[in-house]
Parts: sequence; C-alpha cells; structure tokens
Amino acid sequence: MLETIQNPGQLKNLTLDQKQALAREIRDRIIQTTLKNGGHLSSNLGAVELTIALHSVLSAPEDKLLFDVGHQCYAHKLLTGRCERFDTLRRFQGLSGFTRPSESVYDTVASGHASDSISLALGFAKARDIKKENYNVAAVLGDGALTGGMCYEALNDAGQSKTRMLIVLNDNEMSISKNVGSMSRHLTHMRQSGAYRGFKQFLRKAINRLPKGGNRMERFFSRVKDSLKALLVSDMFFDSLDIEYLGPIDGHDISEMEKVFRTALTYDRPVVVHVVTRKGKGYAPAEENPSKYHGVSPAGEIASGVSCASVVGKWLIEKAETDERVAGVSAAMLSGTGLEEFSKRFPERCFDVGIAEEHAAAMAAGLALSGLRPFVALYSTFMQRAYDQIGMDVCLNRAPVTLLIDRSGLNGADGETHQGVFDTALLKSLPNLTVCAPSNTGELRAMLEAALERNAPFAIKYPKTLPEGEAGEGDVTRWKYVIKGGKVCVISYGRMVSVALKAAEMLKEKGLAVSVLNARTLNDTIGGENGRILREASEEYGLLAVLEDSAACGGLGESVSGAVGGALCLGVPDRFIPAGSIDEQLKYCALDAGSVCERVLQEARARGIDR
Amino acid sequence: MLETIQNPGQLKNLTLDQKQALAREIRDRIIQTTLKNGGHLSSNLGAVELTIALHSVLSAPEDKLLFDVGHQCYAHKLLTGRCERFDTLRRFQGLSGFTRPSESVYDTVASGHASDSISLALGFAKARDIKKENYNVAAVLGDGALTGGMCYEALNDAGQSKTRMLIVLNDNEMSISKNVGSMSRHLTHMRQSGAYRGFKQFLRKAINRLPKGGNRMERFFSRVKDSLKALLVSDMFFDSLDIEYLGPIDGHDISEMEKVFRTALTYDRPVVVHVVTRKGKGYAPAEENPSKYHGVSPAGEIASGVSCASVVGKWLIEKAETDERVAGVSAAMLSGTGLEEFSKRFPERCFDVGIAEEHAAAMAAGLALSGLRPFVALYSTFMQRAYDQIGMDVCLNRAPVTLLIDRSGLNGADGETHQGVFDTALLKSLPNLTVCAPSNTGELRAMLEAALERNAPFAIKYPKTLPEGEAGEGDVTRWKYVIKGGKVCVISYGRMVSVALKAAEMLKEKGLAVSVLNARTLNDTIGGENGRILREASEEYGLLAVLEDSAACGGLGESVSGAVGGALCLGVPDRFIPAGSIDEQLKYCALDAGSVCERVLQEARARGIDR
Repeated sequence: MLETIQNPGQLKNLTLDQKQALAREIRDRIIQTTLKNGGHLSSNLGAVELTIALHSVLSAPEDKLLFDVGHQCYAHKLLTGRCERFDTLRRFQGLSGFTRPSESVYDTVASGHASDSISLALGFAKARDIKKENYNVAAVLGDGALTGGMCYEALNDAGQSKTRMLIVLNDNEMSISKNVGSMSRHLTHMRQSGAYRGFKQFLRKAINRLPKGGNRMERFFSRVKDSLKALLVSDMFFDSLDIEYLGPIDGHDISEMEKVFRTALTYDRPVVVHVVTRKGKGYAPAEENPSKYHGVSPAGEIASGVSCASVVGKWLIEKAETDERVAGVSAAMLSGTGLEEFSKRFPERCFDVGIAEEHAAAMAAGLALSGLRPFVALYSTFMQRAYDQIGMDVCLNRAPVTLLIDRSGLNGADGETHQGVFDTALLKSLPNLTVCAPSNTGELRAMLEAALERNAPFAIKYPKTLPEGEAGEGDVTRWKYVIKGGKVCVISYGRMVSVALKAAEMLKEKGLAVSVLNARTLNDTIGGENGRILREASEEYGLLAVLEDSAACGGLGESVSGAVGGALCLGVPDRFIPAGSIDEQLKYCALDAGSVCERVLQEARARGIDR
Repeated sequence: MLETIQNPGQLKNLTLDQKQALAREIRDRIIQTTLKNGGHLSSNLGAVELTIALHSVLSAPEDKLLFDVGHQCYAHKLLTGRCERFDTLRRFQGLSGFTRPSESVYDTVASGHASDSISLALGFAKARDIKKENYNVAAVLGDGALTGGMCYEALNDAGQSKTRMLIVLNDNEMSISKNVGSMSRHLTHMRQSGAYRGFKQFLRKAINRLPKGGNRMERFFSRVKDSLKALLVSDMFFDSLDIEYLGPIDGHDISEMEKVFRTALTYDRPVVVHVVTRKGKGYAPAEENPSKYHGVSPAGEIASGVSCASVVGKWLIEKAETDERVAGVSAAMLSGTGLEEFSKRFPERCFDVGIAEEHAAAMAAGLALSGLRPFVALYSTFMQRAYDQIGMDVCLNRAPVTLLIDRSGLNGADGETHQGVFDTALLKSLPNLTVCAPSNTGELRAMLEAALERNAPFAIKYPKTLPEGEAGEGDVTRWKYVIKGGKVCVISYGRMVSVALKAAEMLKEKGLAVSVLNARTLNDTIGGENGRILREASEEYGLLAVLEDSAACGGLGESVSGAVGGALCLGVPDRFIPAGSIDEQLKYCALDAGSVCERVLQEARARGIDR
C-alpha cells in the first residue's frame, strides 16, 4: 500500500484498518533502510502512528508541520512522495535524515538542532495571523527537546500572545505516563469535554467525596495530594505559561490521536497535546534497548581509527580516581561523548543537564571557579548554542573549564546541520582560551593532561575517530614538524594531518618535496612560541599552505595569512556541506589528498617553486 | 555611616533603623554618581534594601552571592569596600558597572549578560556539595532575566538534583504582586510555617468555608478559581520544576526579607524567594519613568553623530506603511534599538519576545519563510546568544531575515561584557549570509533598502551613532574608495572609516599619501565584485592595511590576508576590552587616528614605501 501513497492527502480516504496496515509497512521500511544506511531508528519507529494521525488531520503543505530535530521524520518522508528514493537515505546526494525544504514542499524547514520547532512554528502562526490566512501550524517535539531553554522562551511568547498553534509533545520516556496511570485518560476526556477544562470538575468530584472530620480529612488530603500533584504535573507547567494542555494520550492509537488533534485545532490559542509513545516500537531489539538504537551506523561500516570519545572516557575515569577535582558535564550526550561509564563510576561528579548547552557551559564555569576541573563534552555543532556562555561565563572569568569538542570537522551522513566546521572561526577569537586539536590519540591524551595542568579555559576539538599514535616529546600545545624538507610547508591539524601526509607523498612522487607542520594549537599564531615557529616557517618556505576541515572563512589559514602573509588557504568552502561519507565530503570540499596535491602543486608552480 | 562600612560583615551589628538610614545614604550616593557617570539607575535603586538584607543574612565572601546581569550591584559595591572609589564608576580604569572579581573578592563572577546566574550559582552549589563544604549560594535575578531560556534550563537541573541554593527573584514589574494582592502575604506566612508548605492548609481553609448545595457551590468555585490560580501562578511554574517557592514579599522591607531569607537558607533544596521591588525607588523621576532611567548617559556627554537606532526606527515605520511584509523583532530592547515608536504604530507586526535572543532569531526565520520580512534588532554582544539559530534556522533555511546588529564595535562605559567586537568573526563564516557595515547614516538607510530588496539572510552591523552622510551612487554593498592616491590603501568599514580618513590626513602631512577603501560588505573577499576590487587593490598598492574595531583575530583583516596576501591587520587585540570612553578604548587598542598613522607609517617604511 505504501507505494500507492503519493501525498498525505490520500490518508484522508483510508479506514483505520488500512492506516494500521500502512503503519506496519512504514515500520518495516524504516527498519530495513535504517539498518542498511544508518540513521535514527528508535525515534522514527516511535513516531509512525503519530505521523499518520497528524497527516490525516492536517492538510499539508498548506498546513505547516514541523519536526523538532527532525530525527523522527522518516514516516513523514515516506508519506510525502519520497518512498521510491528512500533507500538513498543519508547517502551522498540522497535523501537527508532530517527535513529539508530543498527535498520536498512538505518539509517546512531544515531541521537538525533541538528545541527550535516551537519558535519556528510560532513564526509561521504569527505570520498567518498578520496575513489573515487560516492554515494550521503544528510542531512535533520530543520530551528531550523540551529540556532546551528555547522551548521555554517560545512557550512563554506563544502563551502570552495566544497564537493558535498545535504543539505535539512526543513523550517517549513514558515517565509522566507511568506516574499518572489510568487517571490520565479520565482527565483527558474531562478536559476535552470543554467547560472549565477538567480542573473544576476534578476538584468538585474530589471534594464531594470528602470524608468529614479532622484527622480523617488530613489523612485523605495527604493521599489526594500525591495523585493531584501527579495529575497536574505537566498541566501546571503549561498552565503557568498560559498554554492549553491535553493528554497524555496513547501515541500508537491513531484513532484517539486524530480525535484529540481535531479538538486541539479548534482552540484559538496554543495547545500542547501530550502523546506517549514507545521508542523503537515494533522492533524488539530497539524496544528493549532504545538508547543503543537511537543512532544506528550504516551496515558494513568499518570504523577507521580509534574512537576519541572512548579515549576521553577512559582518561577521565583514570584521572578522577586520583584527582577529586575532575568532573564531567554533558548535554544529553553521555553515550555519544564517551562519558557514560564515567557517569556510572562517579555519579556525583558527572552532570547530564539535558539538551541545554548554554546551562552546561555556565554551570561548568561555576564548578571551575569553585575549584573543580569540569570537562564539558559537547558535539561541535551543538557547542554553537553555548558560544556566548563560553565567551562570557568561561573565558571572561578565566574559569578552568575544558571544552571537549567532539565530532569536530566534517562528520558524514547527518548532513548540513551536523558538520563541526564552524568551531575554529567561533573559538579562535575568544580571549583567554587555548584551542587545541590532536592529530592522533596520543596527542589527545596529552592535551587532556595539558588542560588539567593549566589553570585556564581550554578547548580540545577532535573528530569521531583518530589514528592511534604518540604525542612525542615536549609540550603538546607546541607546533611540530611531522616531516621536513623542500620549499613548501603544509600546515595542518587534527585529522587533516593524515591527509597532509598522504598529499605530501603524492607531491614527492611528482617531484615536489614538502614539509608537514602539525599546528596543535589554533589561536596563537602571533604571540609566543608558536608564533615564532610560524614566522620562521614563513622565512624558510616559499609557500605555506594551511589544510583544515574547518570553514576556510575564519579558519587557521586566515590567521596564518594575517600573521605572516598570504598562505594558500585549503579549508571548507563557504557553503553548508551535505551528507555523505567523510571521504565523499572531503572530495566535495576539494580537501582529499588528491585535490590537495593538485592545489598545492598549482600554487607552487605559480610562485615558481619547482621542487 | 556609609563611609564606615568596610565589609558587609559590619551589617550584622546594625539595628533596623541604622540599616534603613544606611539605605538612604546608599540611594543618595547611587543617584549622585549615576547622574554624573551614567549607568543603570532604576534597577540599582530598586535593589538597595534587598542587598542590605542579603548581606545581613549571608556571610560573604565565604557565602557566594551572584547578581544576574549585574546591573543592580551598586549597593553591593558600596557595602564591600568600594565606597571611596565609587566616583570612578564606569570610567576608564575605574570601577565596573557590573561585578568583576578582579575588583573585589566579594564579586563572585564577572556579570553582564542576562539569565546566567542560576547556572553559575548551581555550579558553585554543586561544587560545594562535592567538596563537602557548607557555604551558602545565592543568585539575585530580575523578572526580566527570568524570560531567558537559560534560567529554565538551570531551574530544571537545580530542581531535579535538589541542590541547596537561594534564588532571589527581584520582581520590579509588580505584575504578579498586583494580581495577587494581600492574599499573597497570607500565603507566604502559611508556606513559611512549615508542615505541608501552605498548599494543604490553604486548600483546607478554602474547603472549610465551602457553602453547601449545587449551584451556589458552582458560583463559589468560579470565584475561588481566579484567586486560586492567581495565588498559584508562580508557584505552579516553580512547583512543576520541583523548586520551592516563597513569596511574594516586600522588597523594601529589610526586616521581612531577612526573616524569609533565613527561612529559605534552612531548606535542603533550591528555593525561590519572590521579592517585589519598585524600580527607581527613592528618586521620583525614575519611579515615574523607570524605563527612561534604566540606563542613564553620563552628564555632559555630547552625542557625536546621529543615533543609528533612530534612523532604523524611522525607516521601518516608513517602509511598514507601504510594505505589509515589514515586521520588527526585539529581545527586550525596543527602546535601545529604536523600535519603540514602530511597536506603537504597528503593534501587530512588532514582536518583543523578552530576553530571548535564541527564540527571536528562530521565530523570525518562521516569519520570513511565511513571506514576511522581519528585521531583528539586537545589540551585538547579545546577538552572540543567537549564533546557532542565525546559522541553522536563518542561514541554512535561506530565510530572508535582516539582523540589525546595534552597538557593534567598541561600546564605551559598559565594559568587557558589552563590547560588540566579536560579530565579524562570528558572522563572516556563515554561508548564505551577507554582512554589511555602514560608515554613515545614508549608507545605513541604503543597506536597509538593500536588505529588503534581497530575498536572503542579511545582517547590518553599526555602532550607537554614525556621522550623517550619503550612500552615494551605485550598489551600497559594493566596496568604494573614499579617497584615492599613493601606494598604501587603508581598508576600513563602519565607524572606523572616519578614523581612517583622519589617519590619512596625518599621513599626508608626514608625506605619505594613502587611499581609503570603504569595505561595506565583510564576507565576500574572495568571490564576486568585491573580491575583484580587492584583488585590483592588492596589485595596485604596495601595502594594504585593514582597520576595524572588531577582534583582529577573525576580523576582515585576516580575510583580506587570506584572499590576497599579508595585509597589516589593525583590529581589536586578543583580550577583553575594559570600560572607557570610545576614544579611550580606541587608544587602548591602538586604533585611534594617531596610532593608526604611526603603525601604517612603520609598516610602509619596512616595505620600502616612502610616499
């Protein structure tokens, strides 16, 4: 049946049975494709019925549907004419793993970072009101995304301005559902029945059942209090922000969801519908271990190199055993950043704050100024959320926080929103901060040591994996020649040092000897010892080329050029980088060894350097 | 009496009468100094008694006291040994207008940006628990700061981890107080009396007073509902986050505050004490118009040039009259950014979202993708909070949002936290974004027109004032020679074009003719028409110098060097810039005309360019 659905409008003609059968087909397709191509499995399996119900009630693309993060949009893609291309998911030039308007008019916005959907949806809703149009706006977000401060900012605004919109809270932790149990359904029906939306009725019933007399009454209240509080726990939060709340309801019951969504769309103000789903629903391994199947690697993918997260995790445990100051901070990424084992061994010194990078950085500043040594592990692209806090709370205070910036540089299949290519431009201009990048696991460990030794803000940025290797003698923050000779010097850092070495071999074959200089610190091209090394290199070589998988605009290449004159800047071009394998992305950016070889050769010839 | 207070410990020996007299002295001193030196008047006058009460109860510096934003810390400064130096407030090398640990051990952190105090305080509190120490931690924040998402992230974390800390909510809008009226006092006393913290007792009393019988009961409930909801409105919010809530109480009643703060410090979990103060308290003009006296300019300050905010405000009104797509977005800065009049004329198209820059940027993306043309006006330093949303929600979506980046560059007396010197480094590397900087008001207006004409993300950055002037013929985003001649070219933008022209005159007197090139767009040094102009300049001149009041590291100078070889980069050095007049700051950075003249002359001589 799935193949016959060309647009979501067709859902309106299906029976409930047909929709349920469709859900099974969609689920099979998601499992099969994700296990092959990699991607977000658990969250997408949880949102199948939810998506069918939403598209049955809404009329997209006139109605605007937004998926927060977008890691639950596979069913949506399958229902909006992308079934045939679905096996290109997350491949180079294939379908994105997130929503992309360039792919389909049904994708309202490009998604990838958490907690922004309510803000965006509110923009669509306010514009509708101004233009006196009448479309519906719906945002779907998970309970995880709701921990981000942006959601609160947006709810605060939406509640106050009373803009009509639907917010579907896709709660797959089931925490509230468990607490509330069967009474929740009762409350939902009461609320939907209108009048004074449940609370009054509930209170009246409770009071009618009041036993008379002092002590018994007190005991009764003590019992009532807990159920009352449990019932109202989400309600209270949304109520205080003037947002209507309906739920929780079963997020795998298409018919009930359609009913509640229809009710919600009749309100003339923002409504949260709280939907409870099961992560990994319909795929036993994922249901049992949803976190393991949150992100799945492509079948047959062979990890090259060693996981930096595991190096970091092991080092932190080792240090924490002897150094009581060592602490870890994560923003809902304990597993991805390698802190999971650390959090089990040292729970009192490991803080997972939710999807709240801003708070993570500022709280770490507080920890550091109190004498602890927090290591804040964030993915590069999500670290962008904390730029201001890193500058103001960490750097201005000279707080000895170490930022562990994982997934730095090109990142593969997650596409435009997940490349860590802006961190050099962002961090290099912050005063008081040392920014380092290791080219192998030995350097990573040595940089962790250096960070702990220094009493100042420190950042270490690294990709998912690095080759095994040694830091060698001396200060690991010092620039260091890996190979030396010739009239051309390729300055590089991080994973790109390996590419530079490959390019150097190719160039040698073509008769041009080059040096490779490992720039292990990125922001002291002018002063100090590294500045001296750079100035000497500038005098020694006829050509400096700077190779990096960070944005060329704002990268180390520009700093080198600013310090010692025109270097050949080989960095990520001025555009968002689409999904692909890292090799494909390097080629796309002309940063693979072959391209680097040619670009260096061309510039060397232009400058009259032949060998 | 104030002169005799060397440290806040002395407060513990004063009677209530003495404290009240002290409050009057502090207030006089604040009024007198702020009217002379400029600064935050209303907020500081509102927090005098609050500060006395806190320092009476706490034992700083062992106990940690944090002021959110820090724009209410003057009384704190006067009570912590800085009375004598207080007349140097906000002056070059004088006392900062915000807390600065470099000034005093009583200043726990450097402050300046809103909504981070709970995160920082939580760091101090968690570190205390880990170290098994026993100090108190207190954060003071205004109701404005509570609109920032970071607060929610921090409260969410604090509530869950049950860390002991005091959060003083300094509510000077009096909105909640008005709603709640006299019943609030009752509630506070109930809550403080312990047991089941008020709610149970309140509910019991309400129920005891229940009239019997159907219809009367219903009417009663309908009345009770409103007062109940009003009573619980803040309570509900904090309760849902598992934060204890006390208040509201009178923030000018020292004795009551001391009592409640003492109670709050006995809790073994986070407590919010809701304190109601009057902005501008004790200075009639400020009480009547607190917003006017929020920020006061130094006495005798003569504004040079025209306010960019007023140019922007007028242009927006003019455009909005004929173009229905034009909308304005502000993050609690309608007045400062010139949007106040616009918001009155076009209330339905002007959105003030509170101190919520992240939401402002993302919501604007939603508005823009729906066909509107939002202009988001932010101060440069606060725009830093929205970097990720500008990149992901605006630029990746190619949403035609125009960022109006006010207070860009050096900013004067507000010091380290308020300089707009990182915006070039931040924005230049974002794909799809055009970043422009006008050198006079005519160019500013022409750039606003250009932004509206283009269907793409656009940023215009400008200082508080610019000289009046014309844009001249042709495309305003194109680089343009202001004067031409000689073998040296000074490339500059924004307010620094005037400095470049002054330096050019000085250089001419010394026999060196220079050109001045106005780089009106900052991020297309490689491709396009501006790239061509730059390459031609590089061939024509023996020396290119790039002059900017943005961080040199990450600035236009580096981009120029990266594109065409070594330029002389004259930008803001790699450190945080302290308060001073803009002239003093320019000198401090060696960016005043005299310094520029010398630096250019030196480099020209080094390169053998004599005239």
